Amino acid sequence: MAETPKIRFGVVGCADIARKVSHAVALAPKAALHAVGSRSINKASAFAAANGFPASAKVYGSYEALLDDPEVDAVYMPLPTGLHVRWAVLAATKKKHVLLEKPVALNVAEFDEIIAACESNGVQLMDGTMWMHHPRTSKMKEFLSDANRFGQLRSIHTNFSFAADADFLENDIRVKPDLDALGALGDAGWYCLRAILWAANYELPKTVIALRNPELNQVGVILSCGATLCWEDGKVATFHCSFLSNLTMDITAVGTKGTLHVHDFIIPYEEKEASFYAATESGFDDLVTKWVSQPSKHIIKTDIPQEALMVNEFARLVADIKFNNARPEKKWPTISRKTQLVVDAVKASIERGFEPVQIQE
Amino acid sequence: MAETPKIRFGVVGCADIARKVSHAVALAPKAALHAVGSRSINKASAFAAANGFPASAKVYGSYEALLDDPEVDAVYMPLPTGLHVRWAVLAATKKKHVLLEKPVALNVAEFDEIIAACESNGVQLMDGTMWMHHPRTSKMKEFLSDANRFGQLRSIHTNFSFAADADFLENDIRVKPDLDALGALGDAGWYCLRAILWAANYELPKTVIALRNPELNQVGVILSCGATLCWEDGKVATFHCSFLSNLTMDITAVGTKGTLHVHDFIIPYEEKEASFYAATESGFDDLVTKWVSQPSKHIIKTDIPQEALMVNEFARLVADIKFNNARPEKKWPTISRKTQLVVDAVKASIERGFEPVQIQE
Repeated sequence: MAETPKIRFGVVGCADIARKVSHAVALAPKAALHAVGSRSINKASAFAAANGFPASAKVYGSYEALLDDPEVDAVYMPLPTGLHVRWAVLAATKKKHVLLEKPVALNVAEFDEIIAACESNGVQLMDGTMWMHHPRTSKMKEFLSDANRFGQLRSIHTNFSFAADADFLENDIRVKPDLDALGALGDAGWYCLRAILWAANYELPKTVIALRNPELNQVGVILSCGATLCWEDGKVATFHCSFLSNLTMDITAVGTKGTLHVHDFIIPYEEKEASFYAATESGFDDLVTKWVSQPSKHIIKTDIPQEALMVNEFARLVADIKFNNARPEKKWPTISRKTQLVVDAVKASIERGFEPVQIQE
Repeated sequence: MAETPKIRFGVVGCADIARKVSHAVALAPKAALHAVGSRSINKASAFAAANGFPASAKVYGSYEALLDDPEVDAVYMPLPTGLHVRWAVLAATKKKHVLLEKPVALNVAEFDEIIAACESNGVQLMDGTMWMHHPRTSKMKEFLSDANRFGQLRSIHTNFSFAADADFLENDIRVKPDLDALGALGDAGWYCLRAILWAANYELPKTVIALRNPELNQVGVILSCGATLCWEDGKVATFHCSFLSNLTMDITAVGTKGTLHVHDFIIPYEEKEASFYAATESGFDDLVTKWVSQPSKHIIKTDIPQEALMVNEFARLVADIKFNNARPEKKWPTISRKTQLVVDAVKASIERGFEPVQIQE
């Protein structure tokens, strides 16, 4: 059987994150770097030269030109969120499969425009939430799904913060209301909310209430915020995200029988291995002066880093559509949309003075 | 110089926790087990025999009789919270120093009755929050107070849960409205709130809002709950406590420059050593595929377990009053009262349908 040809990627925009994902495309067995487009042809050329594109790669001075290249199968789109609806819809119309940076959209209405375009053109949509593709994530999920080891999820806390420098806080697209109006909520909060939904088997919470005093910059973009999420069955979640605190990224999930701790869930400490801590039926000694068992550390190795695994999974789905007439996989846009719904609810709660917001699917 | 005589302890009540603290009194260099009192003389005798009391120890068939023993310097009082105000006030009136189990009282009004009695009788009041006395706690505080390593606290999450068995959920005093009406909030939540206040240098939050859907038993006692706390300066805290989830006890404190993680803050995994994780100015490599530095693990050894250190610190203060005419140390009742104020605020928020409650000192 002949080997399936690689999926040819076009990178739409030269954002910093595009460097990492271009390297990931180069690493992913099922993908190949085919083209890069920027509003400046010089910038595109410099980007291609610096980021492992082959000599044969196409370099375009506009996004439209890249999207018109019939050899491009799929695009990776790291544009500012405010531009997603325009360019992702156009890409879908041009029959390009879309790997879209998170947050997918500024709100679920825009999200729905994007997914409608992808569905009507038969192209795959996936967001750029890399940690979903690390083998550690499925190992953690096995633990959370194990009635004997973890039981039922009862509470979960997630956080993601990093201490942005003065240049970031002044100039990064993520602090600009016309580019990434969701600020830290869309950037860092997206991961926290995805982790909560992931742990809750993507069951949407009933009620979302933002924490008081989120920090905003002078033009009203969120620099830090958080929320509490409640489900009908009594499960609760809290999260906090920030551009103003030391780099931290935790999931603490507590079930009736077990506990999961992970401290580097978005970007693992190391590229080739990652760990988490699992505890089951923890308890004290008779006099309650120490624990009888401690959480166990689980280490998961991976030869291919998570961003390349993401690209490869996306390329696998695209190849299945291209060569086997498969339908686009609904799982990825479905969980993206749920994440977007909860992001929207947190934003709405902040805007309504921290009122409870009911989630409606 | 003659050695200062040991402080003679009377244990008022034979609750399960009294076993641990009796052992701690025996271990504490400045303290001695002198007497135990129970409503049943047989129970008191059996307790003394089983818990390392010397043959000379007094055994009383009522709490009053123990409090009338002129040789008792100090009492340890593990009675149900609903009985604290009666017996702690009587103990103070009898000039006994009072080491009182937490929660100190059912509400701050009762707390104030207890502290007024202690102050007017010149006796020391301290609550039984053992982890405050572990040397790890002061090491963690050094880290949190270090402007270069931790910066300013911005967010903190704490939790404490344990999976109570059917017998506990049916019969323990902590699920009885007439004995420990604060349930999981007073028992497990007390630690979570103390940890938050401790990390915030005991600055009271401005606003407390309980999480929705706390779990209550059939007679209305809290089995699980949580809250968000906000300060004027934008700091935020969240906590969750439960009798219905796997044993878990974390502090995750994030500052502008550093992060603290500890997973066994109330009862250390081991009796003779305990650890925490500290990170400072954490960051990624250039391509954001891994961290350039990981949190460092700090291990603190102690020959004497934290409960004995607590007893010893209490005995030191009592000895200073008894032999050196010192005044009672205000630090301990002050932080107890602040903890009680926040416990009350969470309770009030639950009772008012999760409305924000302003804290007034």
